[in-house]
Amino acid sequence: MPENSTVKLPVTKVYATLSSNMADSLAIEEPLEIRLEYGETNQRQMQNISVTMRTPGNDAELAVGFLFTEGIITQLSDVTETGYSFITCAENKENVIQVSLKEGIIPQLKNTERNFYTTSSCGVCGKGSINAIRTVSPFSYSADDNLVSSELLHELPEILAEHQEIFVTTGGLHACALFDLSGKLLMVKEDVGRHNALDKLIGAALNQNILPLKQSVLLLSGRASFELVQKAAMAGITIIAAVGAPSSLAVQLAEEFNITLVGFLRNHRFNIYTAAHRIILPMQEITPKNQRNSL
Amino acid sequence: MPENSTVKLPVTKVYATLSSNMADSLAIEEPLEIRLEYGETNQRQMQNISVTMRTPGNDAELAVGFLFTEGIITQLSDVTETGYSFITCAENKENVIQVSLKEGIIPQLKNTERNFYTTSSCGVCGKGSINAIRTVSPFSYSADDNLVSSELLHELPEILAEHQEIFVTTGGLHACALFDLSGKLLMVKEDVGRHNALDKLIGAALNQNILPLKQSVLLLSGRASFELVQKAAMAGITIIAAVGAPSSLAVQLAEEFNITLVGFLRNHRFNIYTAAHRIILPMQEITPKNQRNSL
Repeated sequence: MPENSTVKLPVTKVYATLSSNMADSLAIEEPLEIRLEYGETNQRQMQNISVTMRTPGNDAELAVGFLFTEGIITQLSDVTETGYSFITCAENKENVIQVSLKEGIIPQLKNTERNFYTTSSCGVCGKGSINAIRTVSPFSYSADDNLVSSELLHELPEILAEHQEIFVTTGGLHACALFDLSGKLLMVKEDVGRHNALDKLIGAALNQNILPLKQSVLLLSGRASFELVQKAAMAGITIIAAVGAPSSLAVQLAEEFNITLVGFLRNHRFNIYTAAHRIILPMQEITPKNQRNSL
Repeated sequence: MPENSTVKLPVTKVYATLSSNMADSLAIEEPLEIRLEYGETNQRQMQNISVTMRTPGNDAELAVGFLFTEGIITQLSDVTETGYSFITCAENKENVIQVSLKEGIIPQLKNTERNFYTTSSCGVCGKGSINAIRTVSPFSYSADDNLVSSELLHELPEILAEHQEIFVTTGGLHACALFDLSGKLLMVKEDVGRHNALDKLIGAALNQNILPLKQSVLLLSGRASFELVQKAAMAGITIIAAVGAPSSLAVQLAEEFNITLVGFLRNHRFNIYTAAHRIILPMQEITPKNQRNSL
């Protein structure tokens, strides 16, 4: 667990008619400003790209992952250096991170500031948002034979729970995890923001040079939103399983990109919303007879 | 429940070794672009302020609530008109909403695009973020005698659950609710984005001319982040109770604004993080003897 991810604060605990004062751990939330330095040698320029509220830890991975999943950079080799920029601040926190790009690399800044959703000629709608992502996604989604069994999927939430170090301490963090197709846990990232957790994971995968992540399963501790499926699509992920519900646009995007999207993965249940061909289903079909005790 | 908040899609349901194909309801997620029209009669200008991924329904309240909680407008009377702007789009969705300001009203646009966090001379840190909010918050947080009992708090999550119409159908939505100090439910708003749910609620409160919301309790269905406490602070809310965990910066902000912040409000338990004087605690203190069976 990163050192600066939690803090102990005094709290009054109440249970029914009992109360007590004690110290309790909370997940730290602090702003992180991501700055980009780029241009030719004699004309380097600096630009503030984003301020995100995040849990400190894996900041370099978060910054690079964010730039990649938003389509601002297209590969790790675009980046020459990543480091904290200490500015005048009484608290002297590590809250500004600067990413320097290789000479000649032009960041795709038109993709930032939510313009992402408005670049389509169609204007603002779900379809337009999906088309905008298709334009910037670096990986093709052709046919593949990635398969996982439903038995394997049922096991993943418990494996994630065992590795959510900050959540165990604070009860208050989103997590995402990457598994290989045999169910082996490859990495877990946590953050107060679920998009940050996924950016940290994809940034780490970029650093390990394992993109596209076609031979893997992404597990999300909460709901599957459009934004999370978008980031996963940018990393070439083909199987996403969420403990919570998906949104309509998350399903539409998964459908368009031929990504398998599973939701409500908990208590030995799950729903498959798209690309069900990658899940090896149990033998028995639900019949009116056995349905009463199941779904 | 707003008409366009859910959609039925085909899904494969799996439970243990059983599976079945059926239709299931999902929460709709669609982009909403908020546009501002302002200026003198002969020089009206239009500006795109934000694109947020939201569940359709209460869009006008969302737009006005967002503009208010971000400090871009300071009162409802700044607004003369709110309506959908239909642009060329094959799907013809109601995804662009235009808010027109009264002549002479200058929107505080420097507060947008996350610059909110970077206006402080301190740079980017939690303290700077809090100071920035203090500058734009329209209500003072002086002493008050708002009180709620722990018994009343214990009851609120169940009341909210009974009124989460879209959640009941889809299992996938954030909600927030406003109660008066006697526990009477005043309103519930739902959205795929928790910040949107709160903007809808505060926008509705603005429309009802009941701000500042000092005599009320805000209940959040999930975690309490900095952003949610910030929005609540802008509406003058003095008691926030969250079913999930708070973040460190949410607690700091609540502390600075003398807001009572309660977390983990579920199963007859909760934690009080700040301004505990507004909660009437149970009589019995936890002792080593009774602690084993409680906290």
